[in-house]
Amino acid sequence: MTTYQAPVRDVEFLLNDVFEMERYSNIAGFGEATPDLVKAILEEGAKFCEEVIHPLNAVGDREGCVLNDGVVTTPTGFADAYRRFAEGGWPALCADPEHGGQGLPLTIGVVLSEFIAGANMAFGMYSGLSRGAYEALAKHGTPEQKATYLPRLASGEWTGTMNLTEPHCGTDLGLMRTRAEPRGDGSYAITGTKIFISAGEHDLADNIVHLVLAKIPGGPDGIKGVSLFVVPKVLVADDGSLGARNAVSCGALEEKMGIHGNSTCVMNYDGATGWLVGGEHKGMRAMFTMMNAARLGVGIQGLAQSELAYQNALAYARDRRQGRALTGAKAPDQPADPIIVHPDIRRILMNIKAFNEGARALVLWSALREDVAERSADEDDRARAEDHMGLLMPVLKGVLTDTGFANAVAAQQVFGGHGYIRESGMEQIVRDARIAMIYEGANGIQALDLVGRKLPADGGRALRAFLAEVGAFLAEAGAEEAMAGYVVPLGSAVKDLQDAVGWLMKNGTANPDEAAAGSTDFMHMFGLVALAYMWAMMARKAQARLTNGDGDRAFLEAKLATGAYFMQRLLPETKAHLARIVSGAAPVMALDADAF
Amino acid sequence: MTTYQAPVRDVEFLLNDVFEMERYSNIAGFGEATPDLVKAILEEGAKFCEEVIHPLNAVGDREGCVLNDGVVTTPTGFADAYRRFAEGGWPALCADPEHGGQGLPLTIGVVLSEFIAGANMAFGMYSGLSRGAYEALAKHGTPEQKATYLPRLASGEWTGTMNLTEPHCGTDLGLMRTRAEPRGDGSYAITGTKIFISAGEHDLADNIVHLVLAKIPGGPDGIKGVSLFVVPKVLVADDGSLGARNAVSCGALEEKMGIHGNSTCVMNYDGATGWLVGGEHKGMRAMFTMMNAARLGVGIQGLAQSELAYQNALAYARDRRQGRALTGAKAPDQPADPIIVHPDIRRILMNIKAFNEGARALVLWSALREDVAERSADEDDRARAEDHMGLLMPVLKGVLTDTGFANAVAAQQVFGGHGYIRESGMEQIVRDARIAMIYEGANGIQALDLVGRKLPADGGRALRAFLAEVGAFLAEAGAEEAMAGYVVPLGSAVKDLQDAVGWLMKNGTANPDEAAAGSTDFMHMFGLVALAYMWAMMARKAQARLTNGDGDRAFLEAKLATGAYFMQRLLPETKAHLARIVSGAAPVMALDADAF
Repeated sequence: MTTYQAPVRDVEFLLNDVFEMERYSNIAGFGEATPDLVKAILEEGAKFCEEVIHPLNAVGDREGCVLNDGVVTTPTGFADAYRRFAEGGWPALCADPEHGGQGLPLTIGVVLSEFIAGANMAFGMYSGLSRGAYEALAKHGTPEQKATYLPRLASGEWTGTMNLTEPHCGTDLGLMRTRAEPRGDGSYAITGTKIFISAGEHDLADNIVHLVLAKIPGGPDGIKGVSLFVVPKVLVADDGSLGARNAVSCGALEEKMGIHGNSTCVMNYDGATGWLVGGEHKGMRAMFTMMNAARLGVGIQGLAQSELAYQNALAYARDRRQGRALTGAKAPDQPADPIIVHPDIRRILMNIKAFNEGARALVLWSALREDVAERSADEDDRARAEDHMGLLMPVLKGVLTDTGFANAVAAQQVFGGHGYIRESGMEQIVRDARIAMIYEGANGIQALDLVGRKLPADGGRALRAFLAEVGAFLAEAGAEEAMAGYVVPLGSAVKDLQDAVGWLMKNGTANPDEAAAGSTDFMHMFGLVALAYMWAMMARKAQARLTNGDGDRAFLEAKLATGAYFMQRLLPETKAHLARIVSGAAPVMALDADAF
Repeated sequence: MTTYQAPVRDVEFLLNDVFEMERYSNIAGFGEATPDLVKAILEEGAKFCEEVIHPLNAVGDREGCVLNDGVVTTPTGFADAYRRFAEGGWPALCADPEHGGQGLPLTIGVVLSEFIAGANMAFGMYSGLSRGAYEALAKHGTPEQKATYLPRLASGEWTGTMNLTEPHCGTDLGLMRTRAEPRGDGSYAITGTKIFISAGEHDLADNIVHLVLAKIPGGPDGIKGVSLFVVPKVLVADDGSLGARNAVSCGALEEKMGIHGNSTCVMNYDGATGWLVGGEHKGMRAMFTMMNAARLGVGIQGLAQSELAYQNALAYARDRRQGRALTGAKAPDQPADPIIVHPDIRRILMNIKAFNEGARALVLWSALREDVAERSADEDDRARAEDHMGLLMPVLKGVLTDTGFANAVAAQQVFGGHGYIRESGMEQIVRDARIAMIYEGANGIQALDLVGRKLPADGGRALRAFLAEVGAFLAEAGAEEAMAGYVVPLGSAVKDLQDAVGWLMKNGTANPDEAAAGSTDFMHMFGLVALAYMWAMMARKAQARLTNGDGDRAFLEAKLATGAYFMQRLLPETKAHLARIVSGAAPVMALDADAF
C-alpha cells in the first residue's frame, strides 16, 4: 500500500523564494493571498489529500465504478470524501466571489490540483472536470447560464464534463456526428453518442453539467460547423430547483487499464435538451477554453503521479535490504545494506527527483502567467502571458505526462518483483499515469500543436519572448562564478534548441512533414530547456539564501545537488533530440504504408 | 482484440542469408536442419502459435489462474492447448535424442520461443521454465536424476520450475532461509517458503519438477552455502511411476499487474523430499545454467511482446482514419486519411520496427553462438562462444526488455484512447511486457553484471573479441561506397563505446561506484552498438542480394530503409549515454540517503 505526502515545503520555496509571489499583488486575488494564508490553505489541503483522499486510491482501483440501470455507483468512500471536499470549500477556492468563490489566485488552485492528483488521480478527475466546465461557462455562457450553473459548480454541488469524442472521431473532431436540432424555443435537441466521458455519470453530486460538442444541421462542414451546448443531467427550473431528468444517460462504463475509480462513460444523447454556449459554430473556441485548463491539469497529473511513485520508491529503497555497497558495507551490523546505497537505485531516484522538482517549478511559473493572462488589468501583460501559456501548454501536457509515466515505471522497478504485485500499489500508479499521455490530446498532437502552430504563431513572438527571458537570465547569472555549473549547460542546451528551431523553420515551411517528423523530439527538447531554466533559477535562489545564511541549509544544498544532477544527467539528451530532428522526414517517411 | 503473425519470413532471411546457418553443419543437429526442414518446422510452429495459443492470450488475462484447496486451475483452454503442444513434440525440439528429443539446433528452439512468447507470453512460461530445468539437470544431475526427469520434461508430460526468491531476498540470495536437512538416505528434507514461483502449481501436467535453492545446515554463510535440489511435486518410484504427493504446496497465488494466465505461486516446502543436484554448496553454479537460459528467454519475451504490439499498432494505423496528411489528402475520396500518413505515427512504427528486426538478429546471432558453446567439438570455438554469451546475455536481457516494454507503450499510444480500453488488447501487452524488466535479475542487476563482471572478465577478452569482429566488418564493408550510410554511423557509435569502456576502466577500478553509476547507460549503449552491427550486416546482405537481383525486392529495400532509420534515429542516443557515463558517480551519489 502506498503513502503520500503533499510537497508543501517545495511549493513554498517556489512561491515565496523563487517566483516571489508578492510581486503579483496588483492582480486580483493575490492581495489576500499572504504567505501565511497560503501556508494555512496548503497545509489544510495537504492534510485532506493525505488523510482522506489517498487512502481511497487503492480502494477505487480495486472496486471501480459500477453501472446498474443507468445509475453509476462510485467506489466505497468516494461519495463521502467528495461531500467533505465540497463542504471544505475546495471547489470554490479560485472561483469568482460573484458566484460564491473565494477568488484566490489560480496558482493556488493549481498547487492543490497537484496534491489531489498525487493522492488520488481518479478521485481528482470528478472535480477537475468541473473546473473546466466552470471556466467555459464563465467565459462563453449567457448571463442566465452563468447564474444557473456557476454557483453550483463553485460550491461543488454539481460537477461538469466535457463531451468531445465519438467512436469514430477523437483527434479529428470535424468528423463528428452528434446533431443539435433547434427547437425554436432557444433550446436544441441533442442526439448522438459520446465516448470516453470522464465523470459522465456518478453518485457524487445532484446534477452533472455536460458541455457537449455537436453540429447544427445546415452549418459548415467539418470542424467549422461544431457548436458547444450545455446539457444538464437534470433540467433546472427558473428558480434553480431541479426538475425532470434530461434525455441523456450513461450507456456503458469503459473497462480501462487504470483510473478505475473514475467513471469513464459512453453517453447517449436521445434528443436531450441543450442550450447553445458561445454562438453557433463557435464550439471549438469555447471548447479550447476548457481544453487549455484541462491540458494543464493533465500535465499536473503526470507530475503528481511521478511524485507519488517517487515517494514510495524512496521509502522502499531506504527500507529494503539487499546486498552490500560496492564501496564497503554501510550497515555492517545488519545482514545487508538498504538498497539506496546502490548507484543504479540512486540514479533512478535522482532522475525522478530532478524531474519532479523542475516540473513543479515549471507548472507554478506557468500558473502565475495564467493568473496574469486571466486577471491582469494590463493588456500587454495579459498578451505576453497568453503567449507564454500557448507556447508552454503543449510542453507541460506532453513532457510532464510522458516523463511522469516513465518515472512511475522506473519507481516501480526499484521494488523489484514486489513492484509487479498489486499489493505494493506501484503497478496502479503505472496504470493510472498511462492515461495522461493519451487524453486531452494525445502527446503526438501536443507536439504537432507546438511545432506547427505555437512556434510559428505571430511570427514566432512567443518563442522569442521565452528565449529573451532565458537569455537575460543567462547574461546576468553568467557573471556569477558559482552559477557556472548551471549556466553553462543551460546555455549549451539553449543553443541546441535554437539550432533545432532554425532547422525546423528552414525545412518545415517547404515541407510540413519535415517539422512533424521532429515534433515529439522538439517538444521534449523544449521541455528539457525549460526545466533546466527552472533549475538554474532555483539554484541561484538557493545559493543566495545559503550565502545570506537564512533558510534550511540541508534543503537548499539538496536543491543545488539535484539541480547539478539535472544538468549533468538529464539535460544532455538535447543532443540526441537535435540529431534526430535534423535527420528530417526522409528516414521516417521512407517506407510506403504497404511496405511496413 | 489483438492478432499475431509469427515473423517467419524475417527469421528465414536471418538464418539463411545473414547468418548462413549452413556454415554450422559440423555442429550436432545442424546437419539435419536443412532449410526445407527448418521452413516446415517454423511454419508449423507459427500456425500453432497463431491459431491455438494466441486466441488464448486475452482469455488468460481475463480469467487468470484460480487456487482452490491447493489446486491451481489455469484459464479455459490452456490445458487443452498445452496437451496439443506436448503432443506436437514442441518441448522435445532441441532436447537430446537420448532423452527422446529431436536434437535440433538450440537456435530453432529460440526462434520458436519468440513465436510462443509473442502469441501468449503467460502460456509460454509453463514450457519455458521446463527448458531451464531440463538444462540444469542435463548438466548437473546424476545419471539417475537424468533418467528419471529428462525424458518426461522433453516429452512435456512434466514441467519444471526455478525456486530462488524468498520474501526477504531476491537479488541477494545469500540471505536465503530455506533449509535442507540431510536425512541420511541420500535425500534431504526441504523446509521454507519461496515466492514469485512461475508455474509453481497448475493443471497442465502430471508432475512438476521443482529446482529449489536451499542451505544445508553447517555450510558456509551467505551465497557460498547455497545448494540446489530437485523436488518433484509427486514422488517418483524407481520404475518411473508416480507415487505419493511430496510435502510441497502452493500457499497462494500472487495478484499481479499482468501475465495473469501464468500461475505465480507462493510455494511452501514443509519437509519436502529433495535430492541434491550438482554437489553440496554448489547451488549457484547449477542455478546459473538455468538463469542463463532463462535470461535469454526473458530477453526474447521483450522482443516478442514488442513485435505483437507493433503488428497491432500497424494494423490500426492503416485502418483508423483521422485528419489529413500535412502534405495533402492521401485518400481524398474518404472523410479522412488513415493515421499512418502522419509522420509522428510513422516515427513510432519505424522506431519499433527498426528495433524489433535488429533485436531478432541479435537474438539469433547469439543463439547460434549458444549452439557452438553447447555442442561444438572444438574447444576454442566453445570458449569463444561462451565469452560471447557471457558478454551479450545481460545486454539481451536488459535492453530487449526495457526497449520492448517502451515499444509496447508507444504502440498503445497509436490507438489513442482506444489503447487504454481493455478490449483493444494493447494495455495487456504493456502489463505483460512489464514483468520482463524485473524477473530473472532486474535490469539494473543485468547492467551491473555487464559492467562489473563481464567487461573485466579475463582481462576484457570477451569485449576485445566483440570489438575485433565489428572492427573487421567495418574494415571490409567500409570499402563499399553503398555501405557508407551504415558503416559511418556504426563506426562512430563504436568509438563512443570505446570511449565509455576507457572511462569505466580508468575510473571504475579505483571506485566501483563510478562504474555502477553508468552501468545502465552502458548496457543500453552496448545494445545500440550491437543492434547497429546487426543492421549493418543485414543491410550488406540485402544490398548484395539486390545487386544480384535475387530475392524479394520490396522486402530487401524495406530492410535497407529500416536499417538507415536505425542509424539516423536510434543510434545517436549513444552520445547521450556517453555524456551521462562520463559525468560519473558524483552527481548520482551527491545526496546523503537522508537528504532525498
